[in-house]
Amino acid sequence: MATINQNFLQLQGSYLFSEIAKRRTKFIEENPNAQIISLGIGDVTRGLPEAVTKAMHSAVDELAQSNSFRGYGPEQGYDFLLEAIIQNDYKARGIDLQMNEVFVSDGSKCDVGNIQEIFSQDAVVAVQDPVYPVYVDTNVMAGRSGSFNKEKNQYENIVYLRCDADNNFKPELPSRKVDLIYLCYPNNPTGMTLTKEELKKWVDYAKENNSIILFDSAYEAFIQEEDVPHSIYEVEGAKEVAIEFRSFSKTAGFTGVRCAYTVVPRELKAKDADGNDVTVADLWNRRHTTKFNGVSYVTQRGAAAIYSPEGKEQINSLVDYYMTNAGIIRDGLKSLGLDVYGGVNAPYIWLKTPSGLDSWAFFDKLLGEANIVGTPGVGFGQAGQGYFRLTAFGSRENTEAAVERIRKLSL
Amino acid sequence: MATINQNFLQLQGSYLFSEIAKRRTKFIEENPNAQIISLGIGDVTRGLPEAVTKAMHSAVDELAQSNSFRGYGPEQGYDFLLEAIIQNDYKARGIDLQMNEVFVSDGSKCDVGNIQEIFSQDAVVAVQDPVYPVYVDTNVMAGRSGSFNKEKNQYENIVYLRCDADNNFKPELPSRKVDLIYLCYPNNPTGMTLTKEELKKWVDYAKENNSIILFDSAYEAFIQEEDVPHSIYEVEGAKEVAIEFRSFSKTAGFTGVRCAYTVVPRELKAKDADGNDVTVADLWNRRHTTKFNGVSYVTQRGAAAIYSPEGKEQINSLVDYYMTNAGIIRDGLKSLGLDVYGGVNAPYIWLKTPSGLDSWAFFDKLLGEANIVGTPGVGFGQAGQGYFRLTAFGSRENTEAAVERIRKLSL
Repeated sequence: MATINQNFLQLQGSYLFSEIAKRRTKFIEENPNAQIISLGIGDVTRGLPEAVTKAMHSAVDELAQSNSFRGYGPEQGYDFLLEAIIQNDYKARGIDLQMNEVFVSDGSKCDVGNIQEIFSQDAVVAVQDPVYPVYVDTNVMAGRSGSFNKEKNQYENIVYLRCDADNNFKPELPSRKVDLIYLCYPNNPTGMTLTKEELKKWVDYAKENNSIILFDSAYEAFIQEEDVPHSIYEVEGAKEVAIEFRSFSKTAGFTGVRCAYTVVPRELKAKDADGNDVTVADLWNRRHTTKFNGVSYVTQRGAAAIYSPEGKEQINSLVDYYMTNAGIIRDGLKSLGLDVYGGVNAPYIWLKTPSGLDSWAFFDKLLGEANIVGTPGVGFGQAGQGYFRLTAFGSRENTEAAVERIRKLSL
Repeated sequence: MATINQNFLQLQGSYLFSEIAKRRTKFIEENPNAQIISLGIGDVTRGLPEAVTKAMHSAVDELAQSNSFRGYGPEQGYDFLLEAIIQNDYKARGIDLQMNEVFVSDGSKCDVGNIQEIFSQDAVVAVQDPVYPVYVDTNVMAGRSGSFNKEKNQYENIVYLRCDADNNFKPELPSRKVDLIYLCYPNNPTGMTLTKEELKKWVDYAKENNSIILFDSAYEAFIQEEDVPHSIYEVEGAKEVAIEFRSFSKTAGFTGVRCAYTVVPRELKAKDADGNDVTVADLWNRRHTTKFNGVSYVTQRGAAAIYSPEGKEQINSLVDYYMTNAGIIRDGLKSLGLDVYGGVNAPYIWLKTPSGLDSWAFFDKLLGEANIVGTPGVGFGQAGQGYFRLTAFGSRENTEAAVERIRKLSL
């Protein structure tokens, strides 16, 4: 008799963004003339850089002809893309990586979701709170979460690392031993970052406890300040304890094109049941080649093009565009006396909801009175209660209009 | 302490195709002037249909402009593609499907690899032998296989359904109760098919035993004969027991472009631990939306274009090209007195190795004496020992030359 993976029944209700969509749809039905501005879901809005589309056109032309056609490529990605990544994203910052340490994929969501598969089912998992829901949900599916405690809004067996204004969104080291630690910097949803010194604390903890850090660095391209590390491998010894995830989604507008990569250094080991060291990159390679068949050739050519001189310039101007938006939101809200975080090295602005409103009450107020859709902080975890996320990915016009509308609210 | 998923250590050595590549490389090093013809790995060689590349170019242009840009799409696929699939691949054959029963993905390898996640870890799994290795390996990773028995060349807890000349490659129903049954028709690697009546036996078995059939139909487009079902849902009641996997990889040359889809009918239920019915489509939807972020928009536009009148014509001519190759190989080998199977409704030709050679000995003979690379049947499982797979995906010229070379061998 076919029975289901019972862990799926531990998953909590509908996903954050479907609840947002539901409330938004209801509002539009009741207010058909409202001009909604969405600063909610973290999706980009600007067209792809010209260097990228040029490369994609030319790749499509290659595939059209039998003499230049390419079928299955290496599951780990084509050499031309791996080389560009290693050279530009790592070598240029003094980090040496080999070709067999980088794995190209169709998205960081997939990679951060799938990575847990290669670790034991009884691994103790720590996540930041608030947190990108995929880290938690994929561990729930794998049976690592224990049951959900409704009162706490947390799973019993997950270790939550509270990030709030009291600790400036920099979590304390876990009070109990943990095996896998998901860290995201620049952070989604808070937009905050760590210095190299602060990151080193985590690398040291991982070394002492034989833990592995799963470092989600999807927003790396938005870092503006000098003292913020671009890669966890800037911290000495991090290669022995960390896997790093990077994405082209926000960097180059690839949310609909799909390309990302994951770095698993050969130095990174985990123990088997007999206490022997196993090279984690070998496990990930086996997982990746068995359950994945490579990224579209057209997409990989597009991704490689962002490392060309024109590509880099165009990416910079995209990032500038969004970070100017971030500044407009940040400064605008600050001038209203709101407590505002992030938006300096990340496209996310995290604000304390005014007048003690809870996150969903502020969502409803913002939608109802200013016709702006944002994301309730509590949707990212209990520590996000009383906070709210706005994104810098809208158009300039909408971003400015949104700030003006908020200015007119009685907060 | 981070420990690994111990099940990974049960995986057997290197993947079939890497062993082939190794022997091929060694041969080329020793015989640098040999003109190798590859009829081994099942990868296509002809350029993409014009309707497809036209649609992809136009999608790239859309993404280039902010006013027509598309970011994240629905994880399950865009409506325009879902509608084309439902209308052309199902409705046209009298099968009704709803939009929420079709899930577009970046490849059938991913889907057939990931599907097992939604079922319980103690599910008993049956596979055909010989078999596409991904079905087995993904269940090994999930801990369902038990240990590997080297003598038998099989995992202890997997139920193998022997397919050989004695049963005309049509497996017997399992002698013990099984929960998940992987069936692949038209079959890879044997190229054989089942009639509707024969398929009905499996649907009936699944109904009686509350099993679920995982029906891999990646080669459906190559079916030429009238009495071969194109979908398992042509069998009455199959929606209650079967998930179907389809791919654009071989149909339209998408091996490097990446698009496939999976059908999970709403009628399909599995039990939870308390014996309640759970709708399997809901579980798959949750898995798909949590761990996957949709297929490239450019790819989806390309896939939809194969359902246009020009697209259909171009696909037909691609299929004809490869099936003419299949006929050339099949007839050529038959005329030499070899026992040949498949190649009528599938791009794979499965032959009994001559002179009692085992699969790898014939591989070496074919490589050494005719400079042809094929695939040893034993690489697909113990029942493939003494068999060999050739594919019809080469160019016409290479296919004809290969048959001529084999004709000159002393077999």
